[in-house]
Order: sequence, then structure tokens, then C-alpha cells
Amino acid sequence: MADKERIGVIGLGIMGKPMARNLMFAGHEVVVYDLFPEPVEELVTDGAVLGSSPADVASKSDVTVVMVQNSPQSTTVSLGENGIIEGASNGQLVVDMSSIAPLVSQKIGEELADAGIDFLDAPVSGGEPGAIAGTLAIMVGGTQAAFDRAAPIFEATGASAVLCGEVGAGGFTKLANQICVAANINGLAEALVLTSKAGLNPETVFNAIKGGLAGSNVMNAKAPMMFERNFQAGFRIELHLKDINNVMDTAQELGVPLQMSAQLQQVLQALDNEGNGSDDHAGILKYVEALAKVEVKKS
Amino acid sequence: MADKERIGVIGLGIMGKPMARNLMFAGHEVVVYDLFPEPVEELVTDGAVLGSSPADVASKSDVTVVMVQNSPQSTTVSLGENGIIEGASNGQLVVDMSSIAPLVSQKIGEELADAGIDFLDAPVSGGEPGAIAGTLAIMVGGTQAAFDRAAPIFEATGASAVLCGEVGAGGFTKLANQICVAANINGLAEALVLTSKAGLNPETVFNAIKGGLAGSNVMNAKAPMMFERNFQAGFRIELHLKDINNVMDTAQELGVPLQMSAQLQQVLQALDNEGNGSDDHAGILKYVEALAKVEVKKS
Repeated sequence: MADKERIGVIGLGIMGKPMARNLMFAGHEVVVYDLFPEPVEELVTDGAVLGSSPADVASKSDVTVVMVQNSPQSTTVSLGENGIIEGASNGQLVVDMSSIAPLVSQKIGEELADAGIDFLDAPVSGGEPGAIAGTLAIMVGGTQAAFDRAAPIFEATGASAVLCGEVGAGGFTKLANQICVAANINGLAEALVLTSKAGLNPETVFNAIKGGLAGSNVMNAKAPMMFERNFQAGFRIELHLKDINNVMDTAQELGVPLQMSAQLQQVLQALDNEGNGSDDHAGILKYVEALAKVEVKKS
Repeated sequence: MADKERIGVIGLGIMGKPMARNLMFAGHEVVVYDLFPEPVEELVTDGAVLGSSPADVASKSDVTVVMVQNSPQSTTVSLGENGIIEGASNGQLVVDMSSIAPLVSQKIGEELADAGIDFLDAPVSGGEPGAIAGTLAIMVGGTQAAFDRAAPIFEATGASAVLCGEVGAGGFTKLANQICVAANINGLAEALVLTSKAGLNPETVFNAIKGGLAGSNVMNAKAPMMFERNFQAGFRIELHLKDINNVMDTAQELGVPLQMSAQLQQVLQALDNEGNGSDDHAGILKYVEALAKVEVKKS
């Protein structure tokens, strides 16, 4: 892809809208579409081109970025009625940056390939702050040629982009990331609940162990949120539940028993049922606290 | 404690022997005792004073360090027949650096206090390499005065020492550390098994996620061991099992349900039953692999 080509962006939520803005800041012409009119109007006012459907966006763009909620939305946008597949010209590239089930990405990629359309799955980590700052970590699956073609998009929206393998590999890598993060938060929660029940100050425990093998980016980011009782997202429990549901769907299809991830799924589902879905995932602490009837709070 | 006082060291295993050596290097006179004659003879040849029992070591020392296997051994050494309590003079300090159940440390501390003997529980992390290099991370429970008195011991054997609270707080903090480490390793193992089953190169997955929120000291240390199939300890599964058993015993006594730690206990026990107890705890991978019938190996 030459610089300053037309880039379509389908899905203008908390991630897609700031990513579209960063593509505009980088000098690209951007064509936008969303089911909700507000973010579309906002971006068109600021100079974006209006797309009337995913097919229309694709017909007006050289490369189309998709940033939607989950697998069904990605499938509809790419393959459904008035989908990208109906508007894209031969040789066009679709970059799906949504976090969806990687086996679904593979199916979308195959159907698009049959229609002569190239495809990358490229989920991100870094959340809304990373999308706004243009510092997302981008995990990519597809060919090297497609990866190279999408490089200006990754440069405008991310701090790093790693080609992890064929189509689906970006999603599998994202799932690996989400397993590690959730396991880490839940382990930290149990550590702080046990020591709080024993009468220790969780801030002291954190300071004593953060420099050793137990130390992690999760511990540095989430332990203070836990003992300061700040559960404002950040990354919401309902989104982490979605990702772990995709982990377990994928594990089931591949025949991989994952006992810890299964337990994390149940913890996240229970928290969402309890009405805590919009809490930051540091709120996994509340599940452990509720069982133990103890509150982690710095003294 | 003035520098260069006599320090007793009871327990000269893979941890205690190099710690005794580091105390000797630092210029302290060291009195040694172990049930096995070999390490005693070795250290006495190099200038240590021979102790004939824990009581004898205590009677010849100003401060006595204990570094034994688990709670029963610590109890016997401090409170049993010919134990420290029989030889220590009023006002002496016992520093138990073993990793034992913190509620047992509290009982030992209480009985010693009744006999006029001061006590710190001061478990360490860093393993044999840290004991040899004198770079252990030391988690301490007890009074500030006792902590200050033991400072020269901590300086000679550790890179850091943090006073975490009253007697037992060192052990509670160590348990928190071990929960976080085991949770992290098990999460990493599930992440690498799932992505390996999907055909990805685990080294690529590691490189893609290590810089983000999923990144941790465990990931940096253990992921390469996993995909290079190097399970040489390091920190042995049988020792991590001992620590998690102490977590669950403590949780039971305090009435704290810890579902993830309970699962980790079962994983570690199964691996030990399988004959993998002397593997490094990165070998938790083998449990997840065995269920999924897939091997994580870099390509």
C-alpha cells in the first residue's frame, strides 16, 4: 500500500473511532461506517468520507479496516448482505482488528480469498487509551505481503505490530495474551485476599514481592487499583469475558482442555451476572473477596 | 546486633549451606548444625564452629538462623528436645528463614517469646542461585527492633529485606508470592499449549505478548524454558507443591476459599505423583500438555 491511500474504517466504537482519527491525523483519506449515526457524523464533520454500508466503504477504499464487537459482527460486516465482499474490488485488502474467535477469522479469510480479496486478522491490546494514543500492540495473522501492505495502518494506530503466522494467528496470540492477563489478575487477587485476611497491609505485600519472580505488568498496574478500591475501567470485565469465551470455544474446537481458563471463564461470568461487567478486570478481586468475606484495602 | 557476632546456622541444605558461607565471607563467626554430617564437616573444615544440636548451636551463638524443610522441622529445631529453646539465653534472637506455614511460625514465636527469646520469620525467594550469590529477597515478620538486629544477616545473604508486619507476616507474604508465581506459570502454559495446538510457534507468541500487560518476570524466565524443553530446576515442583500445600492449609485455617490456588495444588500434586517433582516449576507445562496431547516446542 502506498502512503495516503483511502482507508475504510467499519466500526466506530470506543476503539474504532479514535483509530480512524489517528489514520486521518496521519494524512490518510478515511471512509467511515457504523450502525450508529453519531460517530459517523462526528468524523464526517471532521473530513472523513461517508460510507452507506460495509460494501459501500469497501468500494470507496483501497484497504478496509474492521473494528467491531465479536465474531458474529465481523462475519456480517465482511460476508453478509451489503458486506465488504459485495463492494471490494479484486486484490483489495481487509484488515480485521476486532478481537474475535480466530477460527472464525480463518473462515472469513478463506471466503474473502475465494473472492480475490486479501485478509489479515490483527487484534490489538492496549484498550481505549492505546487506541486514542495510537500505541496499540497489534498481533497479526496473514501473509508477509499483506502485512507489509498494511504497515502504514499499523504505524498510525499502534506502537508495535508482530506478524504471528497465517490468518488466525493474530487472534490466537491475542487469546494467549488474555489467558495470561486473567490468570495473573486472579492469582494476584487470591494472594491479596489471603494476606488481607491474615491482617497484612496489601500495599506492603505488593512492595515486598513486586521485584521478584512474582512481579508482572499486571501486578504493577492492578495491585494498586485493588488496594485503592479503584475499579474504573480500563479494560472491562464484560470484554475479558468475551475473550475468555472465545478461548474456551477455540479450545473446544481444537480439543484442548484448559482447566485454569475454564475457571477464569466462570469467575468472569459470575462477576458479569452480579452486575460488575463494566468494572475494570482488576475487579476479579471482588469474586475472591466475596467468597472469603474480606476486603482488600491499604491501611 | 553488633557486626561480627556469632551466628548459628541450623540446616545446611541447598539453601542453608551457601547462606552460612556468605555469613562467613562477611566476617561473622558461624556455628553450624545439620542432621547430615557432610555439610557440617565441609564448613567446619573451612572455619565454622561445630554445634552438636540446635540447643548447642543456640548456646554458642548470639543470633540463630534456621533454614530447614518445612513446618515440622522448624518446630522440632526451635521447640523440640535439644531444641533452640533449651540452649538459647534470655534476649537471644532466632531468625527462621525456612518457608513454612505462617500460623506455625506464629506458634513458634509465641513459645519462644514466653521463654524470653525474640523471633523473626524471614522466608526468602531466589532459590539456590540467590542463596549462593547472596541476592535473596527476604520477607520478614516481627518487631522493628528484631529486624534491625538481624540486618547484618540479611545484608550478607540477601539483596533486599522487607519488614511485612508481625511474626508470621514474612510467611504470609511468601505464600502470596508463590500463589502469583504458580498462577502465572499455569496461565502461560495454557496460553502456549492452545497456540501450539493451533500451529503457532511459541517463541513468536512470546515475542508478540511479552511487552504488553501479559508480560511478567515469570514469562521472561519460564517461556523460553518451556519452548526450549529445559525443565532443569531452578525451583523444583516438589518445593512449590510444599508451598501451595501451606497456602491451602493456611487458607483452610483462616476460612478463605481460594479456587485457583486449590487447582494449582492439584496440578502440582499430579505432577509430583507422575515423577516430575524435581523438574523446575516451568514443568507445570507438562500437565497442560498431557491433557491436550500436544508439545510446546519452538520451530
